[in-house]
Amino acid sequence: MYKLYSMQRSGNSYKVRLALALLDIPFEVIEIDILRGESRTPDFLAKNPRGQVPLLEVSEQHYLAESNAILWYLAIDTALAPKTPIERAEALQWMFFEQHALEPSVGAAYFWLALVRGGRDLQMHALEDWMERGYSALGVIEAHLRTHDYFVAGHLTIADIAMYGYTHVAEQCDFSLMEFPALRTWLQRMESEPRFVRMDWVRAATAGKDIGLVARVD
Amino acid sequence: MYKLYSMQRSGNSYKVRLALALLDIPFEVIEIDILRGESRTPDFLAKNPRGQVPLLEVSEQHYLAESNAILWYLAIDTALAPKTPIERAEALQWMFFEQHALEPSVGAAYFWLALVRGGRDLQMHALEDWMERGYSALGVIEAHLRTHDYFVAGHLTIADIAMYGYTHVAEQCDFSLMEFPALRTWLQRMESEPRFVRMDWVRAATAGKDIGLVARVD
Repeated sequence: MYKLYSMQRSGNSYKVRLALALLDIPFEVIEIDILRGESRTPDFLAKNPRGQVPLLEVSEQHYLAESNAILWYLAIDTALAPKTPIERAEALQWMFFEQHALEPSVGAAYFWLALVRGGRDLQMHALEDWMERGYSALGVIEAHLRTHDYFVAGHLTIADIAMYGYTHVAEQCDFSLMEFPALRTWLQRMESEPRFVRMDWVRAATAGKDIGLVARVD
Repeated sequence: MYKLYSMQRSGNSYKVRLALALLDIPFEVIEIDILRGESRTPDFLAKNPRGQVPLLEVSEQHYLAESNAILWYLAIDTALAPKTPIERAEALQWMFFEQHALEPSVGAAYFWLALVRGGRDLQMHALEDWMERGYSALGVIEAHLRTHDYFVAGHLTIADIAMYGYTHVAEQCDFSLMEFPALRTWLQRMESEPRFVRMDWVRAATAGKDIGLVARVD
């Protein structure tokens, strides 16, 4: 069974849990609280020198890092992978866009404004930049979704999961989605997917039972 | 023939030119000077709503953006692609790391310190953060290369090309590679590759002739 090192309220970690849930793949979760430095311990750094979650143990002592690389790996030969080379490249295009345009703006705002106690005061200087870049990324996404039900290939793929991770928490960190109706409709489309699970969904490690519970950090 | 929208001194654009050169794939370059706003014109935004280079026209009026997605696409069925699913996922792992850890630090420093006239004064507030994050990323890379000749799969792949784009200009923007001997050795290994081309290499659009020339921006 896959072992996933994950933080419950991290959007990047959630992407992987969502993919595992959609694919109905059993997994064990080890909660790593990055706010308490648990991703920077010698023990964790030996598993992932990048010091980040999510981290998937793909086989004994063999670890894969980077949420979107994990998504790509989990999706191989499943319905979540686009079929043609160009569609796969387009999925990766959106996933790289997510990591350099959406995650550093909306993701950073979410982390500091929604997760870290007192984060707003600490990051006041960065807020304007996050807002500008975040709205720019959301604008690119909105324009695409105006003419597409999903990001690529006409059906739900790992590109949608990657994009959902942080867009769905944008309103929890000062962004308004009022001006992005196509994005809002796509969020609902994702949420009506069979086997969809919310960010606070917890898969019990042993019983495989679902528990909708997570402690708020702040 | 592929048409590549590229800026000569952009590390992201260089990655794609380097891959095309290593694969000996003919291509036509259209130079887009992002410093002059040429990536934000209505004409260019119609091709790539993200407003960035590189951009590859994969077929008529069909464009692929994001340097690392383009690398992935170009490498399909070539020696530059890792063969097994886990090696492919590991290549993507490094490529996502490159986009969220290396490019926003070393890449940003390179852009503002080496390309933009007066950029240092404009970005003085960001410099410390770039240095801290950049050295952290370089440390992760160094640790990996101490025990690996290439990033994944034991041979040159698109992961190496992605990582080379900005690491090789780190010393042009305040970073010292003195403490990173394995990284320096790997840079030399890349540069001794048959068909390797430097960042200032220009492939003439019509004659296919190599011209080692580019104007400095500053």
